[in-house]
Amino acid sequence: MSTGVESTRDFIMSQTMLRIRDPEKSVAFYRDVLGMTLLNKFDFPEMKFALYFVGYLRPEDGELPTDPAKRAEFTFSQRGAIELTHNYGTESDPAFAGYHNGNSDPRGFGHIGITVPDVYAASERFEKLGVEFVKRPDDGKMKGLAFIKDPDGYWIEILSATGLRKIVSG
Amino acid sequence: MSTGVESTRDFIMSQTMLRIRDPEKSVAFYRDVLGMTLLNKFDFPEMKFALYFVGYLRPEDGELPTDPAKRAEFTFSQRGAIELTHNYGTESDPAFAGYHNGNSDPRGFGHIGITVPDVYAASERFEKLGVEFVKRPDDGKMKGLAFIKDPDGYWIEILSATGLRKIVSG
Repeated sequence: MSTGVESTRDFIMSQTMLRIRDPEKSVAFYRDVLGMTLLNKFDFPEMKFALYFVGYLRPEDGELPTDPAKRAEFTFSQRGAIELTHNYGTESDPAFAGYHNGNSDPRGFGHIGITVPDVYAASERFEKLGVEFVKRPDDGKMKGLAFIKDPDGYWIEILSATGLRKIVSG
Repeated sequence: MSTGVESTRDFIMSQTMLRIRDPEKSVAFYRDVLGMTLLNKFDFPEMKFALYFVGYLRPEDGELPTDPAKRAEFTFSQRGAIELTHNYGTESDPAFAGYHNGNSDPRGFGHIGITVPDVYAASERFEKLGVEFVKRPDDGKMKGLAFIKDPDGYWIEILSATGLRKIVSG
């Protein structure tokens, strides 16, 4: 099999798509709690869904373009953005059972992981903001590593590059 | 609620975790078909699982460090890496039913998305490599956009930043 080096040189791991019940809550969470930027929103009214792209802007990314075509191209050129899919009406449908986070049967997707400078400081702030924890940094065997939940119950690992280095390299 | 700008300045959307049945097949797919690099492997024999981190190395990332501690730190500082979790034994267990890709009930996670320079060229290469398609670029209403499956059946969108710009901005 080809190594793919030539053919895949400019490939970008651009997005992870998660379905969400309520965009107002989810966009607020990814923006205000996790510190991402709402990069774009696309509405498909005839198909009754909307896509919200959130991600971390970097100094080297420059400013978010205001021109819609350039902003779309910018959005799809990001590394590690999150695509939140909202099917119209779930936020106000009492019969809607919610989305599955993949960590109970049937399992599959597990979590996204955010690397932070200080897991304890980040967790303290999340705690103050009322975020739900799956695992606090000192719970269990792996100290210095936390898991929180987003508004739909998806798990988000909170890790530190230097802290985890110590855990995995002993 | 705080905007989080100060507190979250150096946060990185680092990883998306997917459980996999057979690491040999999955690492080969992400490396040889998608062109990612195996950044790291961590074994937890007492807990009977292993983690494989794959991602796209960029010129600005420099070389993959050989020192294990530095390599771990490098791995967890990546943007948009994929963490493949292997629970020992699934690859040879005839009773193992496989993982759930999130696109049938119960739904949740949808897909990861890879941005490529040319969706048609990339798809032609995937076709030659025997990759399974969910949607070929000219299937359905959204032309120039493909979905393929990884060895566990997780969906991977193949998109182009300029092509999708045309679709979403009309």
